[in-house]
Amino acid sequence: MNKLKCGVVGATGYAGAELVRLLLNHPFTELAAVSSVSYEGQTYPDVFPAFAGVCDLPLISSDELFESRCDVVFTALPAGITEEMAYKHKGLYSLLIDMGSDFRFDDEEIYEKWYGKPYAHKELHLNSVYSIPELHRDNIKADTAIIGNPGCYPTSIALGLMPALKNALISSDGIVIDSKSGVTGAGRKLTQETHYPDTNESFNAYKAGSHRHTPEIEQTLSQIVSKSVKVTFVPHLLPVNRGILSTIYAKFTEGASLSSVYEAYKSAYKDEYFIRLEPLGTSANIRNVRNSNFCSISLHEDKHTGTLIITSCIDNMVKGAAGQAVQNMNIRYGFDEKTGLTTVPAIF
Amino acid sequence: MNKLKCGVVGATGYAGAELVRLLLNHPFTELAAVSSVSYEGQTYPDVFPAFAGVCDLPLISSDELFESRCDVVFTALPAGITEEMAYKHKGLYSLLIDMGSDFRFDDEEIYEKWYGKPYAHKELHLNSVYSIPELHRDNIKADTAIIGNPGCYPTSIALGLMPALKNALISSDGIVIDSKSGVTGAGRKLTQETHYPDTNESFNAYKAGSHRHTPEIEQTLSQIVSKSVKVTFVPHLLPVNRGILSTIYAKFTEGASLSSVYEAYKSAYKDEYFIRLEPLGTSANIRNVRNSNFCSISLHEDKHTGTLIITSCIDNMVKGAAGQAVQNMNIRYGFDEKTGLTTVPAIF
Amino acid sequence: MNKLKCGVVGATGYAGAELVRLLLNHPFTELAAVSSVSYEGQTYPDVFPAFAGVCDLPLISSDELFESRCDVVFTALPAGITEEMAYKHKGLYSLLIDMGSDFRFDDEEIYEKWYGKPYAHKELHLNSVYSIPELHRDNIKADTAIIGNPGCYPTSIALGLMPALKNALISSDGIVIDSKSGVTGAGRKLTQETHYPDTNESFNAYKAGSHRHTPEIEQTLSQIVSKSVKVTFVPHLLPVNRGILSTIYAKFTEGASLSSVYEAYKSAYKDEYFIRLEPLGTSANIRNVRNSNFCSISLHEDKHTGTLIITSCIDNMVKGAAGQAVQNMNIRYGFDEKTGLTTVPAIF
Amino acid sequence: MNKLKCGVVGATGYAGAELVRLLLNHPFTELAAVSSVSYEGQTYPDVFPAFAGVCDLPLISSDELFESRCDVVFTALPAGITEEMAYKHKGLYSLLIDMGSDFRFDDEEIYEKWYGKPYAHKELHLNSVYSIPELHRDNIKADTAIIGNPGCYPTSIALGLMPALKNALISSDGIVIDSKSGVTGAGRKLTQETHYPDTNESFNAYKAGSHRHTPEIEQTLSQIVSKSVKVTFVPHLLPVNRGILSTIYAKFTEGASLSSVYEAYKSAYKDEYFIRLEPLGTSANIRNVRNSNFCSISLHEDKHTGTLIITSCIDNMVKGAAGQAVQNMNIRYGFDEKTGLTTVPAIF
Repeated sequence: MNKLKCGVVGATGYAGAELVRLLLNHPFTELAAVSSVSYEGQTYPDVFPAFAGVCDLPLISSDELFESRCDVVFTALPAGITEEMAYKHKGLYSLLIDMGSDFRFDDEEIYEKWYGKPYAHKELHLNSVYSIPELHRDNIKADTAIIGNPGCYPTSIALGLMPALKNALISSDGIVIDSKSGVTGAGRKLTQETHYPDTNESFNAYKAGSHRHTPEIEQTLSQIVSKSVKVTFVPHLLPVNRGILSTIYAKFTEGASLSSVYEAYKSAYKDEYFIRLEPLGTSANIRNVRNSNFCSISLHEDKHTGTLIITSCIDNMVKGAAGQAVQNMNIRYGFDEKTGLTTVPAIF
Repeated sequence: MNKLKCGVVGATGYAGAELVRLLLNHPFTELAAVSSVSYEGQTYPDVFPAFAGVCDLPLISSDELFESRCDVVFTALPAGITEEMAYKHKGLYSLLIDMGSDFRFDDEEIYEKWYGKPYAHKELHLNSVYSIPELHRDNIKADTAIIGNPGCYPTSIALGLMPALKNALISSDGIVIDSKSGVTGAGRKLTQETHYPDTNESFNAYKAGSHRHTPEIEQTLSQIVSKSVKVTFVPHLLPVNRGILSTIYAKFTEGASLSSVYEAYKSAYKDEYFIRLEPLGTSANIRNVRNSNFCSISLHEDKHTGTLIITSCIDNMVKGAAGQAVQNMNIRYGFDEKTGLTTVPAIF
Repeated sequence: MNKLKCGVVGATGYAGAELVRLLLNHPFTELAAVSSVSYEGQTYPDVFPAFAGVCDLPLISSDELFESRCDVVFTALPAGITEEMAYKHKGLYSLLIDMGSDFRFDDEEIYEKWYGKPYAHKELHLNSVYSIPELHRDNIKADTAIIGNPGCYPTSIALGLMPALKNALISSDGIVIDSKSGVTGAGRKLTQETHYPDTNESFNAYKAGSHRHTPEIEQTLSQIVSKSVKVTFVPHLLPVNRGILSTIYAKFTEGASLSSVYEAYKSAYKDEYFIRLEPLGTSANIRNVRNSNFCSISLHEDKHTGTLIITSCIDNMVKGAAGQAVQNMNIRYGFDEKTGLTTVPAIF
Repeated sequence: MNKLKCGVVGATGYAGAELVRLLLNHPFTELAAVSSVSYEGQTYPDVFPAFAGVCDLPLISSDELFESRCDVVFTALPAGITEEMAYKHKGLYSLLIDMGSDFRFDDEEIYEKWYGKPYAHKELHLNSVYSIPELHRDNIKADTAIIGNPGCYPTSIALGLMPALKNALISSDGIVIDSKSGVTGAGRKLTQETHYPDTNESFNAYKAGSHRHTPEIEQTLSQIVSKSVKVTFVPHLLPVNRGILSTIYAKFTEGASLSSVYEAYKSAYKDEYFIRLEPLGTSANIRNVRNSNFCSISLHEDKHTGTLIITSCIDNMVKGAAGQAVQNMNIRYGFDEKTGLTTVPAIF
């Protein structure tokens, strides 16, 4: 088999760099091109010395990258830019996987409400698919042109809630989601909030009740229960490099119990390699998914208020970004989903 | 004025050491004695070299400490031990401030339910007072013999909720509290969970829905609204040394709004030196209370679900333990409440 | 006594902020004015919410600050700027303490060699004094107009070496100094190197053999032995907020031993409150000086190579910057040197 | 080809766990057995949940492990225990790779001096080989029964010094080595020094001038120059999980210069995949080798003292332990040395 020729647009951000790392270890891909606006003209190891000898590619422009006719182009860009790029270079890629937010929404109105503008090229969205593989893998067809790769928070949350919601073991009303993300989630761009002495030994909520991942979360949960779901979602900045843990609070429905919920999760995820249901009585920890594509879920109950407590964690850069993108690529090309993603978590 | 002669039982734990630090800087106290089971016979700087020259006291037994007839004895001990000690040495102290859990409950049944045994000496509880100063300072009388110093989580939560609850701006039903604590909160005792490589870059919930601080939280909230309040409470272990941040979710009552809530907090806390209401649009951060006795509160709303989001943070070792103990002592002896507690937060 | 009216130029950097924190707790000073180029027009708590209610001053320009006629002006500015400011506003201050590098050198040629320009106002240097108090306090006179506050690395190193050098117990040739500094030492300005995910879990040397603190170190050591001393100095960036630890390697002279060195240190520092000589067999740790003005020194030997190993540590923001500035101010005005500087280290 | 059947004795320590992780990803090995004294009878995921589904082996005794007749047994044990085990189970393994210190010394006297006892079974040492592959790979023969895997500090130091020493570009006298290691280097056993709040934001030297790795370092350096070399070695505890950086100071010999040294390193390591010589002007950083088997070396000079400054860093758990063990196994069995070790560093 010829290897898939891959390009990464925005390869000098954190998600881009993680993707480069994963593609270099993938047996069926050839990393052919990397682009960057900020570092165009330099080589990849000029920016990241750790890649010397394993990826010595020059950083080119996105135009050049598309013109090099990769089979798969991954984009890791701020909102709005990918859509234009995908349109401009249509025909120059067989698959584009966007790790940004341009192709995550079924409903243009929702996109417009949260991102402040309508779709520029509606037709692109017709052949695009949003995919958390464990929930949407069947939507990816052999000719899917664009995959909207999910956000990190929404991935941890949808995987954490699906079996309980689908089996009506919890109420879809009043769900509260308290998420905590490592600092790579805030990107590689310099800000005072992510300057080391200001972040280290610090902790705070941000965008409480107004984070742009909210509509993406609600879209997936609504699909699961086939009705509109609204959630309260508050993210926090956690002083670690990697990892997201979402603590999710929902009310048991009549007759549901922790053990029935546990059985539902066991059954729903029994064939899912990347989902790890932790034994009752133990707690999911971001340490146990670090550097891996696993999602670890633990279930707890507060009996005296009838509340199911779900903690769901992923590595925000892998299952929350680059790893899931590779997983989606694997599905699209008929590879085993695990290909290139079997790294055991680095527990320390 | 003669200085108050103070003793610290359990002075080699984190809360004990922080108290020693504070008492050494307090203008009206003399640190006269420190005790420790594990290090008895050594000097304080043998255990903590940082105190060389500023506190060279020998570590004695608790019996010896009580016999040295301190005015104020602070106890920082595991549950159950202080009660016995307070009884045995009755008459040998004018005030005992327990930083443990023995004197935090009005209702013996609740204590028994969560701690597995009834009170050993009921009469001691008759003249003991539980006090988060901003809520209970008037309960402390000139002859109060025992003060039950509040837990760290309950302090951050009660201060965060009081004005909204008291003014009926939120429902007292369905409150969800997601708390995150620095590792000093887990104590100085060695455990695998707090071994550096296992804690660093890690994050997890623990005792979800079953933490012993739950009844203490509910006791205070119930007093505020004069009816039984039940909450869902989940603590998490945060990879920082100090600080607790509680994110609290509650439903607005009819007619309440973020701005009316904000006004209620402003009014409730206008004379409280240690409470800092952050401007709307900003987020409380544990960095901004580090090493200080302040409690920082920020208010947020999720309009689309009608949810008030409160983040309340304290330094778990100061306002959450030793600082609040000093504040309670100040009240009991008629000192300005701020005495010895005016350190400006160490923001880095 | 009237309180000294103090102003801080460059109050929004880390050293400036730490100085503000210390001055607010100093019994004989009144913090009257703070200036900032970047944040002029905002209030101090706009930049640092932790100071709300304790320092609500507006951030003004440095011109305005000088015109407000403070007794003492502290400057925390990049190299070269203070000299101009001190000249321009001559007569508007009784004492100027520069925490930058403009007044640290006796020899203009050395300054010019390392900073690329000669002195702009030579006359200012005639009445300026460089002072690590434990070494130079007698140089500060009642009419000293300018104090050049030492650099952080040089402070840890000079205090660590003085007794051994002065007593000729080590050779002044071939001294190797390996220093490690917390990230606040790199300043509050944003850089990729100090972006949280790039600094956290990282460690590296920087400016190996060419750091600008080298001539300052050599100036002090040369004074001690009254001959030219050259050292090899390599700083490293340590992923902590605060603290410097310098590990210093020197050859014992004939007849010298660890115990004779230990006695020399004990004797040299017996009256120095801020110098802590750790017991033989223990190691100095930045934890034990955190947030304090102490310098902790431990002595070790490598018998098989005849090497004395000194580890000397300080809090880079306190004894290495703001605390030492306050200590110098205390000397100049005849206060007890410890005034405002008795905080016990925060060991966690 | 049949896969090599591998067993790990001491699989629940950090080095053991990292080895398990690497062996699970190695194409030519089958992880057949894991042993542990502390956790015997539990399964591997009981101790490390992160391995659920990828390594569900039971933790057995070392006797059982040897009796299961693995081809390769890796031992990660405290000093002295492996030698007995290797003797007792002779014939039950084709290769034993000891990650401890029992087979690191050519000279029994040195072992006895530093470890307090003579060899128990001298004959075992006759067919054992110490191997940092880049220096000693030719010593490994097809029938080598025991490989003494090098210590973490010695690996970083020997690789950092070899080309300069071998080419006589530096003096072998007066070498000073200042090393800093992440906390996994201190092991998984609980100690107060590695309790999170005591380690976090802390930094100190330990065993200055008397660390047991000193003789191992000197043995290798002495072999390189064919004469006895003595070094001054001071390790420090770095508050990160992984990584060692050694800063090495040596005097240039007559005529040597930074550029001639650089050329010597380029030439010496031109065919070494795992050695990365960083461009002049840049600094090696533990971040750039994290989770990988690379060793990154940067060269610097202090012209005014004629000193070469080498910084050499590795991941202490990979190139400093488990990765190097796999590399040695690859050599012994004729695999490509890189097999199973091509993970790109995780730079964040």
